[in-house]
Parts: sequence; structure tokens; C-alpha cells
Amino acid sequence: MKIALLGCGVVGSGVKEILDASEQNVKITKILVKDKNEIREARMTTNIQEILNSDVDVIVECIGGIDIPFQYIRQALQHKKHVVSSNKKVLATHYKELVNMAKKNGVILAFEASVGGGIPWLENIRHIKRIDHISTFEGIFNGTTNYILDKMTSKGVDFQIALQEAQNLGYAESNPIDDIDGHDVKYKCCLTANVIWDTSLPLEEILFFGIRNTKKKDIIYATQKNAVLKLTGRAVKVDKRIQILVIPAFLSSQENMAHLPKNLNYGKIKSEYLGESCYIGQGAGKYPTAHAVVQDILSILEKRKLSPEISKEFSIERDYVSHFYIRSQRVSSLQNFVSDILDEETVLTKNVNLLELLPYIDKDTFIAEIRL
Amino acid sequence: MKIALLGCGVVGSGVKEILDASEQNVKITKILVKDKNEIREARMTTNIQEILNSDVDVIVECIGGIDIPFQYIRQALQHKKHVVSSNKKVLATHYKELVNMAKKNGVILAFEASVGGGIPWLENIRHIKRIDHISTFEGIFNGTTNYILDKMTSKGVDFQIALQEAQNLGYAESNPIDDIDGHDVKYKCCLTANVIWDTSLPLEEILFFGIRNTKKKDIIYATQKNAVLKLTGRAVKVDKRIQILVIPAFLSSQENMAHLPKNLNYGKIKSEYLGESCYIGQGAGKYPTAHAVVQDILSILEKRKLSPEISKEFSIERDYVSHFYIRSQRVSSLQNFVSDILDEETVLTKNVNLLELLPYIDKDTFIAEIRL
Repeated sequence: MKIALLGCGVVGSGVKEILDASEQNVKITKILVKDKNEIREARMTTNIQEILNSDVDVIVECIGGIDIPFQYIRQALQHKKHVVSSNKKVLATHYKELVNMAKKNGVILAFEASVGGGIPWLENIRHIKRIDHISTFEGIFNGTTNYILDKMTSKGVDFQIALQEAQNLGYAESNPIDDIDGHDVKYKCCLTANVIWDTSLPLEEILFFGIRNTKKKDIIYATQKNAVLKLTGRAVKVDKRIQILVIPAFLSSQENMAHLPKNLNYGKIKSEYLGESCYIGQGAGKYPTAHAVVQDILSILEKRKLSPEISKEFSIERDYVSHFYIRSQRVSSLQNFVSDILDEETVLTKNVNLLELLPYIDKDTFIAEIRL
Repeated sequence: MKIALLGCGVVGSGVKEILDASEQNVKITKILVKDKNEIREARMTTNIQEILNSDVDVIVECIGGIDIPFQYIRQALQHKKHVVSSNKKVLATHYKELVNMAKKNGVILAFEASVGGGIPWLENIRHIKRIDHISTFEGIFNGTTNYILDKMTSKGVDFQIALQEAQNLGYAESNPIDDIDGHDVKYKCCLTANVIWDTSLPLEEILFFGIRNTKKKDIIYATQKNAVLKLTGRAVKVDKRIQILVIPAFLSSQENMAHLPKNLNYGKIKSEYLGESCYIGQGAGKYPTAHAVVQDILSILEKRKLSPEISKEFSIERDYVSHFYIRSQRVSSLQNFVSDILDEETVLTKNVNLLELLPYIDKDTFIAEIRL
């Protein structure tokens, strides 16, 4: 089977290393690079058309960014090439179009590396789904923010210092908005829900909150309560609706998920026959991501049923009733919802519907669910 | 595809329920029962020959016991039937013969349900192995003993009371020797190692210790050290040798594995590209086990590469150097190894080779590794 790599950066070079060393019947015959002076091997080119019109069977997109990968993935599918991508943003945003396009062209669209690539996460979901009915999933799907919160907890450092450390270690991008504001987890939860429930959820309707405004005092509160602050994502299917939410949460230290260290990812599934099953592994990084990409390639080679279905419609349920911790300059306006006042800017709410709190949440607010 | 069930007890009836309700192209056409008066459906029989000579493609062994299932599995393979079994004792004991017999007859021998069936464990190992090199695994592979130790820790009850509770809940057999003395974990570690490293380890050479002699004071010691006592199994590949050991261990509460609650199972793998990946789920029970059996059946239907290989030889490395906690009536004879004396019957050892301690360990000794 012949493979084309689009992009040979961190992930691409990992895929190249693994496949070039592999004894499987899989060879990289084309590599797209951005610039003529990056060409070092005969199989490298700067011309996407040359790749689209070649005899490659699979096109692996590891360019990064949005518009160009989206274009290339579409073109690849139209040229009846199987596509493997780790680009969660492109996939979650254009899910319906891309999945349908793959189906129409009789090729596979695979994206194991897009969510918890080092776990493996979507692979286990597909496996369990063959037999079982999954009712809910939850987890910690962003290693960067887990690293930041873990450092803030274990070392008592400020958010900015922990973020800087994550950047120095290559965990966080120089522009970390996607990670710290919860977009990344939103994409991943959307893709996970789509795969589990054979659907295509409207990404823009998913409620999400990040950890950008986390302060030392929030961590101290967690410690006092024998809890741990984590950025969680989850979804539950209730009849024809899916309740899906990305939010920081104070988890009881009794919960296994509370003990996830470093930049790892954690995913938990509830299904009818298995009950709860949990998966922990690297969510990113050169080799874990490249491993997941190569798994997709081998599964295509083995003709496994990888392609997702979009056969069901669900509406997104935005109601979510729980207790929340809120730190804001506008706490006085929250008085109807308050059960405890921690200090002049921090309150705990009664059991309330998150939708009722939305009007009071601005860009400087820190909000977290209390699960104790 | 036509399936025969041997046995229709707890697991068998679960498999029957799942398959009878399934829309897959898989039908149970024969069911072996022990006694004529158990026959309630036309497809039930007490005659194994009738099944062996029928047109079934897969024979699912869920009888329990040793000699009869071993005979039936051999006969099934000789009749060129694929075999699915959850019988870890038979499989670990007769691994080489059965795997070779399956290969010779061109059929598949599958046993997902035999180790951490509700995780899925062996499936993830096979998946990772397609690309990656696994260097080590460890875990908690017995739900009954995890339940007992968890109860002793959380409720402060004695071993016998916790065991009785586990028996009342159906977690422990009326004869719990296999669980509490570590045999069950030994079988599972042996099978796991065999699958990971394409080998067939000599079961009888594996060192194993159980939790039968655990007392309240051992649990109190754990709590004082901010540790948790668990029955662990693990193996590491070092060149042409495999170090494999089943032993209770005091785990630091920093370790994720220390927080495994109830009767769950936990498995962790280290591999070159993925680093560490962990899997948590039910290790036993009607539906989790039946789910794993049905997964094997579907994988046979999809012609996946399920059959294990025996292509490499390893010797078992029995040397194991660590710190140990020992409670024994003969502690005085251990004086050369002691670093701390906790009381008249309990000592902590220096960093010593477990082999040197063996002569001093009798059936009343409690020994645990200290991993703090």
C-alpha cells in the first residue's frame, strides 16, 4: 500500500520514522513539503496535484492549521484516496461534509490521532460499540491543561508560570488559546460523541469553559476540600438528546480521574455490558500521535471497518444542573444562586442550571463544577 | 457464522443473551448442557460428539473446570473448529500444545475473556503490538482480591470478613484458593506475557505470592505510610529473559494503580512509541466476560489476526531485588536481611534478592514488596 504524507513536521516525521522502519507492506512514496529548499529526497515535492494524481492509496494529513488541511482533505477524498488526519479542529468543524464525502467516494476517513491518540481511545470505542451500547463518556482530553493544573497543584505556582513551563516543554503552543480556553477539548468531545452515537453534532452549540482564569486560591480551595481541579469533558445520551459539556471541575480525590498526572489523557466509557471502562495514555506528542496515525494506516490495510457513520440525529441538551464555584468581579449579581460566600469575589452556588448562570459569566470569570 | 456453546452457566447464558439479541450474522445453533433435564431448546444437547461433527464454525468453551474443558478444546481444534475460551487455567497450563494445535488445524484460538475481559486487555495489547515494542506490563488482574483489600482498607475489617463479603456478592468462589493465593494472577500474567512476547512461558517457574495471610496491621502500616496494599502482577523483558512476578505490594498513593476501587482490574503497558498506557475495567462477571467472548467471535467473523504466535524463546528470570515487608513467626532467622523491625513478627528488609528470602517463607508468612 502506498502512502503520501502531507507535512513532515513533528508528527509527520514520526510517521515517516515508524513506517520507514516497518516490515509491513506499507511504503511512503510521496511527501509534501512547503518549500523547495526542504526537498531532500526524491519522494518529496511541493506540488499537491502531483500527489493527488499519483497512485498513492492513503493520504496522511499532518500539516496543521485549518484552511489548507481542510482543502487538501477534501481534494484527497474527491480523488478517492483514503485519508488519515489528526486535525481535530478541521474534523470537528466540517465533520458531516467530510464523512459524507468519504462515503460518496468509497474511501475511508480515519482520525484515531485526533483524540487521545496514545490511549488508544476511538479504537476502543469502535471495538466496544460492535456489541455494546455506550450511554456516556467523560474524561480529561487535553494534556497541556492537565500539566498546568498538575503543576499549580503540586508546586503551588501561578497559572502563567505553569503555562510557561508547558510551553518550554513543547506541550503548549506559543498561542495556547485552543488549549486553555477549552476549544481543543470541545473538538475532541464533539468527535468522540459523533463516533459513539453515529451522529454529527453542531460544534457551535457545545458549551465550554477553560482554565485561563485559574488562580492559586482556586487550587487552595481544592486542596482544602481534598479535591483536585481538572478540565473535564463529557457527554451523556438521553433519548434523542445529547448533553455535552466542557468545564473545569473539582473532583473528589476518591475519583480515579482526579489522580491523572502530568500531561496524560484519561477517558472513561459507560456501556451496558462492560459497565465502566477507563483508558489512560499520552494525548499528544510526536511518537504517540504518529503511532495512532500508523494504526489507522494498518487498519485501512487490513480493511477494518473504520469509517464513522452519520445515521442518527440528536439535539444538544444545554441544560446542566449542578453546584458551581464562581470567581468573578460581579458576584454580587449572583445572589439568587449563592449557597456559600468564600470571599468578596468567590461564591459557591446552590444546585442550579448552568444556563441561568451564563448571563453573569464574562471573560474574566472562573467557573468550575463541584463534584464532591 | 454458526456457534456452539459448551456450557450455559453464568458466562454461557450471557453469551447466549447477547448473541440471540444481536443483528450480526452470528447464530448459536448448538448448546452443550450437562444433564438431559436441562434441555429446553431444540439446539441443546448433552452430546459433545454431535457438536464436534456438526457444521458449527466456532466452539465457545464456558464450562469451567480443568480436565473436561481441556479435552473439549483439543477435540474442537482437531475438528477444525475455531475455539473461544475464557479458561485462563487451561490456557496458561497447556498453552504451547493448544496454540500449536490451532495453528496446525488452520483455526483460531481466542481468549480475550481470560484476562481482564471487561477492559479489553489482550485486544489493546494486540493492537499496540502491530506497531510498537512492549517492554513491560503490570497491573491488578484479580477483582476478588482487589475487592477484599479495598474493603479491609476502607472499612477496617478482617480478611475473613472481607472474603465472606466477596463470596456473598458472587465475586469469590466458594473455594477461593485460586484467587487469594495468587494462582489466578499467575495464569493471567503468563497469558499476557505469552501474547506480548510471542512465547510460551513455563507456568510452573513463575514466582507468586497471595494475600491469604493479610492482617489488619498490614493495612494499618500501609495507611501510615500513605500507601495502599494491592495484589500486583508484572513482567519485564530483559534481553532473552523475562522477569515475571505476582506479589502483594505497598503502592505509593501517588501511583494511579493504588486508587483502583472495588473489584476492578487494572493493566498498564510500557511501549516504545506510546510510553505508558493504562486500562481499567471489570475483570469478571457475567456480562463483561460474555462481552469479551462475543468480541472474539466477531473478530473471527471479521477474519482479524487473533491467533497468538509462539516464535520466540525466553527463560524466566527469577532474580528480583527490592525492599520487602515480611510478617512471619520466623523473623529472627531473617536478621541478615533486616533494615527495620516493626514488631516481634514484622520486619522490613534491605534491598535484597527475593530468591534469598524464599527459604524463610512458609505458608503462614505474609510478604509484600515496598514500592514507596
